[in-house]
Amino acid sequence: MGLRFDQMVLAKTGEELHRFATDLYPICRSITGNGVRRTLGLIEQRIPLQIFEVPTGTPVFDWRVPKEWNIRDAYIKNSNGKRIVDFRASNLHVLNYSTPVHATMRLSELKPHLFTIPEQPDWIPYRTSYYKEEWGFCLSHKQLLALEDGEYEVCIDSSLEAGSLTYGECFLPGRSAEEVLFSCHICHPSLANDNLSGLTVATSLAQLLTGQKLRYSYRFLFIPGTIGAIAWLARNRDTARRIRHGLVLTCLGDGGPFHYKKSRRGDAEIDRAAEHVLAHYPSPSTVLEFSPDGYDERQYCSPGFNLAVGCLMRSVWGTFPQYHTSADNLDFVQPQQLAESLRICASIAEVLENNVHYRSLNPCCEPQLGRRNLYLSNGGQSADVELKSRLWVLNLSDGEHSLLDIAERANIPFSLIHEAAALLCQNGLLSLISDDVRSSN
Amino acid sequence: MGLRFDQMVLAKTGEELHRFATDLYPICRSITGNGVRRTLGLIEQRIPLQIFEVPTGTPVFDWRVPKEWNIRDAYIKNSNGKRIVDFRASNLHVLNYSTPVHATMRLSELKPHLFTIPEQPDWIPYRTSYYKEEWGFCLSHKQLLALEDGEYEVCIDSSLEAGSLTYGECFLPGRSAEEVLFSCHICHPSLANDNLSGLTVATSLAQLLTGQKLRYSYRFLFIPGTIGAIAWLARNRDTARRIRHGLVLTCLGDGGPFHYKKSRRGDAEIDRAAEHVLAHYPSPSTVLEFSPDGYDERQYCSPGFNLAVGCLMRSVWGTFPQYHTSADNLDFVQPQQLAESLRICASIAEVLENNVHYRSLNPCCEPQLGRRNLYLSNGGQSADVELKSRLWVLNLSDGEHSLLDIAERANIPFSLIHEAAALLCQNGLLSLISDDVRSSN
Amino acid sequence: MGLRFDQMVLAKTGEELHRFATDLYPICRSITGNGVRRTLGLIEQRIPLQIFEVPTGTPVFDWRVPKEWNIRDAYIKNSNGKRIVDFRASNLHVLNYSTPVHATMRLSELKPHLFTIPEQPDWIPYRTSYYKEEWGFCLSHKQLLALEDGEYEVCIDSSLEAGSLTYGECFLPGRSAEEVLFSCHICHPSLANDNLSGLTVATSLAQLLTGQKLRYSYRFLFIPGTIGAIAWLARNRDTARRIRHGLVLTCLGDGGPFHYKKSRRGDAEIDRAAEHVLAHYPSPSTVLEFSPDGYDERQYCSPGFNLAVGCLMRSVWGTFPQYHTSADNLDFVQPQQLAESLRICASIAEVLENNVHYRSLNPCCEPQLGRRNLYLSNGGQSADVELKSRLWVLNLSDGEHSLLDIAERANIPFSLIHEAAALLCQNGLLSLISDDVRSSN
Repeated sequence: MGLRFDQMVLAKTGEELHRFATDLYPICRSITGNGVRRTLGLIEQRIPLQIFEVPTGTPVFDWRVPKEWNIRDAYIKNSNGKRIVDFRASNLHVLNYSTPVHATMRLSELKPHLFTIPEQPDWIPYRTSYYKEEWGFCLSHKQLLALEDGEYEVCIDSSLEAGSLTYGECFLPGRSAEEVLFSCHICHPSLANDNLSGLTVATSLAQLLTGQKLRYSYRFLFIPGTIGAIAWLARNRDTARRIRHGLVLTCLGDGGPFHYKKSRRGDAEIDRAAEHVLAHYPSPSTVLEFSPDGYDERQYCSPGFNLAVGCLMRSVWGTFPQYHTSADNLDFVQPQQLAESLRICASIAEVLENNVHYRSLNPCCEPQLGRRNLYLSNGGQSADVELKSRLWVLNLSDGEHSLLDIAERANIPFSLIHEAAALLCQNGLLSLISDDVRSSN
Repeated sequence: MGLRFDQMVLAKTGEELHRFATDLYPICRSITGNGVRRTLGLIEQRIPLQIFEVPTGTPVFDWRVPKEWNIRDAYIKNSNGKRIVDFRASNLHVLNYSTPVHATMRLSELKPHLFTIPEQPDWIPYRTSYYKEEWGFCLSHKQLLALEDGEYEVCIDSSLEAGSLTYGECFLPGRSAEEVLFSCHICHPSLANDNLSGLTVATSLAQLLTGQKLRYSYRFLFIPGTIGAIAWLARNRDTARRIRHGLVLTCLGDGGPFHYKKSRRGDAEIDRAAEHVLAHYPSPSTVLEFSPDGYDERQYCSPGFNLAVGCLMRSVWGTFPQYHTSADNLDFVQPQQLAESLRICASIAEVLENNVHYRSLNPCCEPQLGRRNLYLSNGGQSADVELKSRLWVLNLSDGEHSLLDIAERANIPFSLIHEAAALLCQNGLLSLISDDVRSSN
Repeated sequence: MGLRFDQMVLAKTGEELHRFATDLYPICRSITGNGVRRTLGLIEQRIPLQIFEVPTGTPVFDWRVPKEWNIRDAYIKNSNGKRIVDFRASNLHVLNYSTPVHATMRLSELKPHLFTIPEQPDWIPYRTSYYKEEWGFCLSHKQLLALEDGEYEVCIDSSLEAGSLTYGECFLPGRSAEEVLFSCHICHPSLANDNLSGLTVATSLAQLLTGQKLRYSYRFLFIPGTIGAIAWLARNRDTARRIRHGLVLTCLGDGGPFHYKKSRRGDAEIDRAAEHVLAHYPSPSTVLEFSPDGYDERQYCSPGFNLAVGCLMRSVWGTFPQYHTSADNLDFVQPQQLAESLRICASIAEVLENNVHYRSLNPCCEPQLGRRNLYLSNGGQSADVELKSRLWVLNLSDGEHSLLDIAERANIPFSLIHEAAALLCQNGLLSLISDDVRSSN
């Protein structure tokens, strides 16, 4: 009957997803360094994970793997020796990837290194400087305004040295060598929606798929944004060719409506599957055309790869005020919202797994459903759509139409079309056309 | 000049159509039996008809031809011997296809065999039980409420025995062996819109086509719904392959707007012809996408046939309250409404007959219409559209565009485009490209 | 970097365009005769022009070149010998192409030869009689009402004799033998929008293109409407085959919104270029589907040629009250409006010239823009669209997408996409795919 997730189990995952996000929240992640390793370590407690280290300086297409950044402490002390900006209170206080510094300076010297959001005076911004060596502090605008003239001791106890870039892969083999990719970035420090939401949902989905009989093989990538995706693609060109469907997961914990951004191809099966699932989801959602900005779909959809990889979000990055600020915290992502996101991902996986072609064994006229007790259902409000689903499946199972084609044309949820096909198959009215995915040996 | 119906004749058919429906109304039809034969007998008085009998038990694809049902009388008598439900008052009172019964029973025993419409307490429902042997009565809800406890004599003097299924065909040969199919069901008892309207309009159209010089051959099927279409297709697989365009006619007498339901193909010439004719009809109309429920288009459009057969209706079955009740009577179908339906069918036939390709004999630049007196028309309000029609026909007659293609692109009624083409042809400006339909020998 | 017009120069052309229209306005043009020659003479003072004479009677496709018409004077004198209708006051007073006449007649005899616009009692209509030999006068309805019974002397000192049809061509060679055509008619007397606007804009565009390094060759036709286009096409069938893009220019001086009427093909590059330019123009505009009426696109788009020639207008002919009346004068066309039209034509030419294909030299993942200082622009409000333009060009430069394809998909003005491509090319990130137009040898 193919992959069907237990809706009861899915409904109960919200709290677990949020707990996992809570564990991950304090870690100071960046594109390299121990924050990434600790994060992968927590994921590894839940799913099988292979961890890779790519040495600093390794050429990856047009780029080179950057230095490894680690940080132990950082603060600004006032003339009384009081920590008035403290890394231990929030790791956002440090400009991510800051070079080490320990000095005393006047406020006027310090100010060019301070970043705030005047419009949101209580929030700390999240800022990075990956490709230009610099140091700096991020603080609330209120904190900045409270700074008095005088001398300040600034300390960033970090290191930026040759080391490596770290990423993790979870691979779940299926009958086919063709793969479904789920990719999320793991390079943001204490930011909950962007992107603990993505990595917790991805981890949970991998847990749910583990041990299932799968049509496709599944690959979950937990990687630093941009450079991680570029490094992975550079090291896995053959594997990339086997990716038939993919999703980048990000911003999946906020309360906004779902957004699916299409792959560069625009009409790939993943695009149609995501659009179909969202169209039949009870809340409104939006499908966006591909554009070459955003998350790592930029790399997967670069012209040399042009993979069928879209991006699933709730609110779109950059459009909500909490984006890249301290307000993107554990209150901003709610258990129920994370659980809904997992459910959408699970539904998309169900469509991909079950989207096969059948052939009607009675193509000439309708078969007599009545004598097989298929004309009436067990009743209830869904009786009509159950019968319609069977008639649509019989009418379009000519070998040309997949179940998703049928669901789209019938405007009936895929799950009902899939159920109808399974029932008709049991009754000898349909035969499965051999799977058209490349087999895995 | 091709087929052109006389609009005056068409306008006067309304009363005749209604009179014919009045003659047919009292007959108790079912999917088999003498009601069908009497109905075909009345049709045969108007058009040449070949009548076929298919024996009970004959396998037709996944089905078998059912027993033949005939009924002479039926009633429920109260303890005073009074017929309180009487088949002679309305043949809808009997559950269609009821097995015979003659018994006396208490009201509580009788009640499971009684069917009403509580929401429409004055109307008798129309119910059938073709594929499960059962007996029953249909009555108004008021009648049901008036029944007192006590003993009732129930009698259904019917027979359900080996016999045959009966259907009729009217075939009008044309120059081509390719056929236009008009199909209507003849299995409903005293119901006027569903489907005396369809069969009277079909009969009238066949009368109008008789004796005309036709491009296509025309086949009119008068068949019991579902099993009749299945039986016909099973016995005429070669003929079915010659059907190039087809329409199922039903619910054509009520006062609702026209609905055309597309064939499964969705872009067949019949779909475009019907959509075009309705678009230029002065009243609003709706074009519906194909779905595998409805009338016999279900069978013609099953994947093994996938014929270019759509369905023309005024109100859609199941959407008007009178549907399958005693209120679908001779008042519900009005002469003018039947005449309009015939006119639409006639216009569609005109499009199919006249939808040919011409080639301009002056393809380079416009020919000089002025010196041929074709630049100005005889004036009046239509002068502008007459000239536009000529310019469109000249511009698009490159061998690639049919007259329907031109009418669609110009958004001008097909009849005007056809007239323009005929005039240009007479003036030596166009030549007909040899008919692309298969010739009939 | 390709063709880029100087926006400053374009902005200053309005007054010059209007001055040129003012010089041309008094000339009494017709489809043949000295009015056309004098008009071409004034054009020739600005751009290189080759002038052709086609003798009366020459067969051109389905037509023959008509007689040559010349006029010296015309009037109606009342019984006091006063010129009450005077050609010297407005050349519109004479029915264009009138045969000569000199007679005295009563008002009742004269009236059938008089044409007015009762709804616009102050305006003189513009009327012609090319293909039926006739004489007549056009006057304001007020003038007509003032005519008293009595005798009138009518004189039209014209000649209609064997001669020739005159037209002019300006040819600007480019790298390719493939041509861009701009065509405008020069057969209307004192009418400013229809069509001094078209011929002044065409002349100005030819001036701007002169001396530029051009990808395509450019051909500007200054021809009498209909018969001129037919004569040109009949005499230049090989040249016509080299026309890859074309525009008919007309009604470009009024204050209405722009209208672009598509070529018969509907999806030609000229159609997409014009639609793109207008979509990004700050004022609203309308794209019209092709129809076989209008200006000389009728001939270029006849099925034997089917050239990719559209028509650019501001207000559509026949839809503004001043059309073909004395109110279509030098006040109706304003310098700024003419300049805007020239700017649209210039932008379309820029798109055609620069619409090439590039191939990304880093197709796998994004190249690192940061280290090339391409990730941030010089700032300002356009920073975001500059970066987006670069990302779009990199993402879609796979050899399949032209710059116009990219501009359309990105919904970014072509000029910005073109700039981005040039910058990326300079930085070694793109290579030009060899031009796909036929080279000129």
